[in-house]
Amino acid sequence: MKKENLAMLCDFYEFTMANGYFKNGYYQKNVYFDVFFRKVPDNGGFAIAAGLEQVIDYIRELHFEEEDIAYLRGKGIFDEGFLAYLRDFRFSGDIFAVPEGTPVFPYEPMMTIKAPAIEAQLIETFVLLSLNHQTLIATKANRIVRAAQGRAVLEFGSRRAQGADGAVLGARAAYIGGCAGTACTLSDELFGVPAGGTMAHAWIQMFDSEYDAFKAYCELYPDNPTLLVDTYNTLKSGVPNAIKVFREVLLPMGKTKCAIRLDSGDISYLSKKARKMLDEAGLTDCTITASNALDENLIRDLMMQGAEVDTFGVGERLITSAKSPVFGGVYKLVAVENESGEIVPKIKVSENTAKITNPHFKKVYRYYDRESGKAIADELCVWDETVDDTKPRTIFDPNATWKTKTLTDYTARELLVPVFRDGVCVYEQPSIEEIAAYCREQVDLLWDEVKRFENPHNYYVDLSKKLYEIKNILLNVYGM
Amino acid sequence: MKKENLAMLCDFYEFTMANGYFKNGYYQKNVYFDVFFRKVPDNGGFAIAAGLEQVIDYIRELHFEEEDIAYLRGKGIFDEGFLAYLRDFRFSGDIFAVPEGTPVFPYEPMMTIKAPAIEAQLIETFVLLSLNHQTLIATKANRIVRAAQGRAVLEFGSRRAQGADGAVLGARAAYIGGCAGTACTLSDELFGVPAGGTMAHAWIQMFDSEYDAFKAYCELYPDNPTLLVDTYNTLKSGVPNAIKVFREVLLPMGKTKCAIRLDSGDISYLSKKARKMLDEAGLTDCTITASNALDENLIRDLMMQGAEVDTFGVGERLITSAKSPVFGGVYKLVAVENESGEIVPKIKVSENTAKITNPHFKKVYRYYDRESGKAIADELCVWDETVDDTKPRTIFDPNATWKTKTLTDYTARELLVPVFRDGVCVYEQPSIEEIAAYCREQVDLLWDEVKRFENPHNYYVDLSKKLYEIKNILLNVYGM
Repeated sequence: MKKENLAMLCDFYEFTMANGYFKNGYYQKNVYFDVFFRKVPDNGGFAIAAGLEQVIDYIRELHFEEEDIAYLRGKGIFDEGFLAYLRDFRFSGDIFAVPEGTPVFPYEPMMTIKAPAIEAQLIETFVLLSLNHQTLIATKANRIVRAAQGRAVLEFGSRRAQGADGAVLGARAAYIGGCAGTACTLSDELFGVPAGGTMAHAWIQMFDSEYDAFKAYCELYPDNPTLLVDTYNTLKSGVPNAIKVFREVLLPMGKTKCAIRLDSGDISYLSKKARKMLDEAGLTDCTITASNALDENLIRDLMMQGAEVDTFGVGERLITSAKSPVFGGVYKLVAVENESGEIVPKIKVSENTAKITNPHFKKVYRYYDRESGKAIADELCVWDETVDDTKPRTIFDPNATWKTKTLTDYTARELLVPVFRDGVCVYEQPSIEEIAAYCREQVDLLWDEVKRFENPHNYYVDLSKKLYEIKNILLNVYGM
Repeated sequence: MKKENLAMLCDFYEFTMANGYFKNGYYQKNVYFDVFFRKVPDNGGFAIAAGLEQVIDYIRELHFEEEDIAYLRGKGIFDEGFLAYLRDFRFSGDIFAVPEGTPVFPYEPMMTIKAPAIEAQLIETFVLLSLNHQTLIATKANRIVRAAQGRAVLEFGSRRAQGADGAVLGARAAYIGGCAGTACTLSDELFGVPAGGTMAHAWIQMFDSEYDAFKAYCELYPDNPTLLVDTYNTLKSGVPNAIKVFREVLLPMGKTKCAIRLDSGDISYLSKKARKMLDEAGLTDCTITASNALDENLIRDLMMQGAEVDTFGVGERLITSAKSPVFGGVYKLVAVENESGEIVPKIKVSENTAKITNPHFKKVYRYYDRESGKAIADELCVWDETVDDTKPRTIFDPNATWKTKTLTDYTARELLVPVFRDGVCVYEQPSIEEIAAYCREQVDLLWDEVKRFENPHNYYVDLSKKLYEIKNILLNVYGM
């Protein structure tokens, strides 16, 4: 795909609606949309927000080219005034978002957009796409990295990604979620995700023998070479040839750092056998990398079995989040400004209570226990509320009206930070290392019960008293 | 992502290997790689090949920029001669591929690359990524379209796609697989996939009432408007308001074509109730569109229940192929040319017999029964074999040595067609409508048993006698 400006990457209905807002004058009206999600992939306890940097790039570039206007005109349904308006279109609104790497929970805004109706509507698809995709992969990576308990996890999935962005931005998101690196060279060049890699089976097959292939490789790359040992027979041919070559080529150079990679067969069994063979040959510095359709469940299992794996290479199941390949972020209208500039909250009701939205322009606070430092609850407040964390605070379950919780001895932090003000980017994007470090640190502040893989504790995302009351009034008006 | 040239979208090991081939002179050696897969997603009986057009674009653009060379130099492991070689790098080889829209089966080449070793190696990741992604989505779309038994299926999933290419090229692949259109505007503008769409819930919420929102919309778009009826209450508010507005606005204009869209709740129940209400109001031309986490299983179920749905809008489960989100195409060395230009077959053996490759530079024939016209088997032959379909032919099961099949009264068609010759594109890319029509026609030539959703018949992909014998010789040499 060869488009720098992704303005046209939007659902066609955004244009039909925008044309309507133009015709009826709504386009001058400020509206408020929230991006939030309802369910964590893989039934996890939290997600890792990602994809903001690409939203920022998109908003900055956002404009329509003459060819785009001509394409729309060809549809025969758009007003010429609207098309002229698009010609000068720029985003002029405000965007608030949680920084990338933040653990986020269902039903809280990850992003809030305040903008004139057309502007807010036209960015819907790309904003969702970017946040949904990268949050999905960062969340999955974080699960896999937690399963590996400190052993390095590398992202290897480009070839099975769903498109080029899936590969390159997926590797970026995986790094935010905790991966140590990627096989994807372009992700390194563009985003600084450390890329590495050694050989495919083709390298081995290209030579007359496995031994020749290993020898040529070690002579070329004597600094910590990784040899792929499963082309013919892992234990009978691959590992013995690797040992032979490491001893013949590396040891005389005084080098001991090296690795083998297992890419098929029973990783637990093969890694233990290989470890033994390497140790007996005196190659105790040689590490073992394993790859082959791994994910957090298989890695947990391998760890339980005491597999001798130092580094996990994870491919298709990470880059597509294969067991749960959709992050269901939605973009919902929560308020509109009326003629006098007053912010009027809006709600979307549904026969399915899980689909009822939290209305209004909101703030999100995260509360941390003063003693342990751990995150204890998030609270959605109306935009004009301010929390004083020196005083106790009672928060309300959004669905179960009788459930409240009173906090004492806590610190409060606002999660949504300004990203755009009047169309100008006011956010200083951290480096990818900073984002990954922030993610690590924030995940450390979650209780283990929230981080559990199966049936995690539902972290509290409650409403302020004021928001709770506004929601109830609206439900009484529109409810069924 | 802002790269027109995706040369750097490759796994880092392709560079380390390529540098090695450069140093040892292998880069002048012609090698042969096959792209094939082992398993059809969703346990289906066949896949729909797609993604070739993007491979062609990629190969044509393929080159390295100074910034790419500088990036690689910074790694400190690449030979200056190799970096100079990359500066003038162009693809100079041959590519053969099955045309997009062709039904393909496990273990047969979808593409064969003949090129000097470095060139063949450096394109591995992108070639796989493009074919894997679009074949995945075209295959899923074809399942969903078959489940809908002639009712239109629209692709609605951009916002849940895994990246921008996932959305735009996914919509392209979905159209190849049989979808009637997409919500993705950019896919229409770039590839001619018909885009359409009407309104989101936000449109309704923006107005003082649902009735006002519907009225404004129908006045603006009186030609076949679709009204979203589930913002407040489908049967008590949405459908009655839609009926009122259709009668007040459309009928006086002499227009009867219109539609409603159901996006939540029990689609079977609501569609039947809504159909009845519309018919009783005389709106028999009003059609019903349903969307809400649909896939082929839910659509099959809805059809069985007699749901009154005319058009299905399918989102996240199509654009990510959610139940089976990975297409596992692999890129395997099958032959190398020796000094005298002779083609030497290569095999990759494995403890897992399913991972053993079919060696050699090959042709693929598809055989059709002369009487019914149906496809009966594919045969992999050595490159220098030619099939004479006026004579009976015996083909060999690649794994079960005692299973042979003798064909009589058949026609033979070669599946792999030349795409590049000596680096020059020799393939005339059909239009997307032609590809979609070809796909429809070829799927019609498959037996129903192969098209079954559950436990489909395993279509025969057999080996020629010559290839069978070569494979056995290699297995005896390298086998365990």
